[in-house]
Amino acid sequence: MSNEKIPYKIYLEESEMPKTWYNLRADMKDKPAPLLNPATGKPMTAEELSVVFCDELVKQELDNDTRYYDIPQEILDFYKMYRPSPLVRAYCLEKKLGTPAKIYYKFEGNNTSGSHKLNSAIAQAYYAKSQGLKGVTTETGAGQWGTALSMACAYLGLDCKVYMVKCSYEQKPFRREVMRVYGASVTPSPSMETAVGRKILEEHPGTTGSLGCAISEAVEKATTTEGYRYVLGSVLNQVMLHQSVIGLESKAAMDKYGVKPDIIIGCAGGGSNLGGLIAPFMGEKLRGEADYQIIAVEPASCPSFTRGTYAYDYCDTGMVCPLAKMYTLGSGFIPSASHAGGLRYHGMSPVLSKLYHDGYMEAVSVKQTEVFAAAEEFARVEGILPAPESSHAIKVAIDEALKCKETGEEKTILFGLTGTGYFDMYAYESFHDGKMDDYIPTDEEIAQNITKLPKVD
Amino acid sequence: MSNEKIPYKIYLEESEMPKTWYNLRADMKDKPAPLLNPATGKPMTAEELSVVFCDELVKQELDNDTRYYDIPQEILDFYKMYRPSPLVRAYCLEKKLGTPAKIYYKFEGNNTSGSHKLNSAIAQAYYAKSQGLKGVTTETGAGQWGTALSMACAYLGLDCKVYMVKCSYEQKPFRREVMRVYGASVTPSPSMETAVGRKILEEHPGTTGSLGCAISEAVEKATTTEGYRYVLGSVLNQVMLHQSVIGLESKAAMDKYGVKPDIIIGCAGGGSNLGGLIAPFMGEKLRGEADYQIIAVEPASCPSFTRGTYAYDYCDTGMVCPLAKMYTLGSGFIPSASHAGGLRYHGMSPVLSKLYHDGYMEAVSVKQTEVFAAAEEFARVEGILPAPESSHAIKVAIDEALKCKETGEEKTILFGLTGTGYFDMYAYESFHDGKMDDYIPTDEEIAQNITKLPKVD
Repeated sequence: MSNEKIPYKIYLEESEMPKTWYNLRADMKDKPAPLLNPATGKPMTAEELSVVFCDELVKQELDNDTRYYDIPQEILDFYKMYRPSPLVRAYCLEKKLGTPAKIYYKFEGNNTSGSHKLNSAIAQAYYAKSQGLKGVTTETGAGQWGTALSMACAYLGLDCKVYMVKCSYEQKPFRREVMRVYGASVTPSPSMETAVGRKILEEHPGTTGSLGCAISEAVEKATTTEGYRYVLGSVLNQVMLHQSVIGLESKAAMDKYGVKPDIIIGCAGGGSNLGGLIAPFMGEKLRGEADYQIIAVEPASCPSFTRGTYAYDYCDTGMVCPLAKMYTLGSGFIPSASHAGGLRYHGMSPVLSKLYHDGYMEAVSVKQTEVFAAAEEFARVEGILPAPESSHAIKVAIDEALKCKETGEEKTILFGLTGTGYFDMYAYESFHDGKMDDYIPTDEEIAQNITKLPKVD
Repeated sequence: MSNEKIPYKIYLEESEMPKTWYNLRADMKDKPAPLLNPATGKPMTAEELSVVFCDELVKQELDNDTRYYDIPQEILDFYKMYRPSPLVRAYCLEKKLGTPAKIYYKFEGNNTSGSHKLNSAIAQAYYAKSQGLKGVTTETGAGQWGTALSMACAYLGLDCKVYMVKCSYEQKPFRREVMRVYGASVTPSPSMETAVGRKILEEHPGTTGSLGCAISEAVEKATTTEGYRYVLGSVLNQVMLHQSVIGLESKAAMDKYGVKPDIIIGCAGGGSNLGGLIAPFMGEKLRGEADYQIIAVEPASCPSFTRGTYAYDYCDTGMVCPLAKMYTLGSGFIPSASHAGGLRYHGMSPVLSKLYHDGYMEAVSVKQTEVFAAAEEFARVEGILPAPESSHAIKVAIDEALKCKETGEEKTILFGLTGTGYFDMYAYESFHDGKMDDYIPTDEEIAQNITKLPKVD
């Protein structure tokens, strides 16, 4: 079919929506390394994991073999409320850049959580409910994941306890209020509700909290409260599985119009969006059926792929979670106060780490001010105000399109537009006022944390 | 076609999108009363209006006869970036309510301006550009309209000067920053940029501004600056014309599935959404081809339809604009600080006022806390966090659906979900914290302003 006929936005019909999630690990000849128990140094068993996660999710977490998982009907019904998400042809951006490249983006921001996080939130909440649990606990920084989980729990009638980093709770009250609309209890962390919270408050009375501390509180609450489990919005294998719906829809929409991407670009924090977007394309690449250039984009302030080490490390700064083999900057690495909160993670999905290590994908890091300049350029021609996280992918998509302008190549570019920036206006204000910095960690800072990796193997 | 097959969301194909706007006035046997020049008491001429508005918009404003206007290609292309908007079947809300009613809503919030305002913003900006103008001026309160206009101007490369009520500029910086992303100049009003602004600042040095003052500044700037005109987001006939795209899409989507609404519900401030949503349905009603129950919903704090007077009045509190015959609470009426900023207008579209006066539609007023309770109920089952304005329609749609539950009637309800509430979280917070009041003006307060109507006829 001629590209002339491609609409601005491709929406699949409900009947064309994916009915299964795709487990990329099934097509990996070399599997990602297993999670290790930090106490024993041995692979985590299902039994050990089931104290923290609900049973079906433990199964998904450990399953390297099953290629497809049927999406339960109740999740499919929930997906229909905000999916299919549109695959957008960026005609206006192409025109503005004067590029022969054809640019597409999969827009995951048209839902109240404002991002793709909802895809896994509903799945995790559903399995918790199916197991007869009363509720789930989680942590949230800026609030995207907490919001998504609150929405999913409200829909299913499940209790939702969110530990929100105290400084965000106080300085960014809006997402906190969105969570309250959906009936979640939102507790500023550290709190007096948990032993670990009380301990931290005693030792550091004036602390404004950290994500590591909020994780510790959420895990403690889940493991000490009858009928609760802990859930997490990124990094985990199960999250990659649920997020494959992004890539499956993208591929179905492109196949429908006979379009094949040459380059696929996604921002990468813990890897949930990138892993989901690339899943079916990477599957073809692993099976030798097709080739794609795949680019992960990370902030220069938190460059786990481009400057980190591939090794076992703690997933949390509190060192209570299992060890994962991944590209890491060290669990003690504290990135500068970048505005892309969703990309401020010291590690990376073990699945993506393995694929990157084995040469199946590339990674680049970009500076914050470049990212916001790209975001603004995009917003003015494509209408959508992008999230800072998503704008990392925009920046590199524009760079690649401009390379095509130089060479005359008509490459097809697909990138993931993970969300909207409506709750990030302080960041845009800082950019407009010229107050945004581009801090990049020194080699010494990075080396310093890497020396503290746990000893395993 | 059986209702069983109706998808959660109906998206028209691009080829099915309306190519024309529908001018409801053409089907009104009794036309709305003309705008009057406040100085002469005579109908405003095209020449008089063209000092303030650009020429094509003046023509549209005065044209009671042309039934359809072709939508220019450049506007159609812009529409394709965020339209068609989905017509959503509220399966989850129906289930929650246990009603046999079938509920549909036309969701206009899936764009960065967050509301339907963009439909007219792009049209007004386009005609300004076509006339060779350099830019447009406008006022904004909470910022929805200013945001929409900024987006449209950025797309067309037109300058955009927004006068934003000073207290909103300072207390609600987020929409201001969105406007800056789109390159608009945003000036807190009153300002030193205009004579009227300087006068007000001299007389009231500490004033935080008002919409009336911001209108006066925007009009002065437009009429005293070479190459500029003033634009307005509601009330005017031209705005109703552009917004007819909402109703035309809704009707096309319903026709496609053989669905006919029994009740159509919309919130009403100046009338831009309601007028647009009902346009083609009201046209059928006026031509005697079909019957629909049409309900305007307004806040009890600003009840122009339900407690106002049908008379000529000033459109602005500064009394510089033409007189319009409409349901009004008096241009001096100051509604209490309701959180539905978009519905705090003392008057109502002259077109809708005439139709209401002639018995073609009904109106109800609802209290703010009831509205937020309905908003929250809706958000939890349908996912979308609605704007306070839109939630007025939700409240009445739920009421009508519950009436059907009582009677067993399977009525089909269509309502307009005009926008999202992402920038209204302070209002939700106030609701959650039990701090929201339900102030309703007394009969004396209303009578007091009505005595000050201008003398005409």
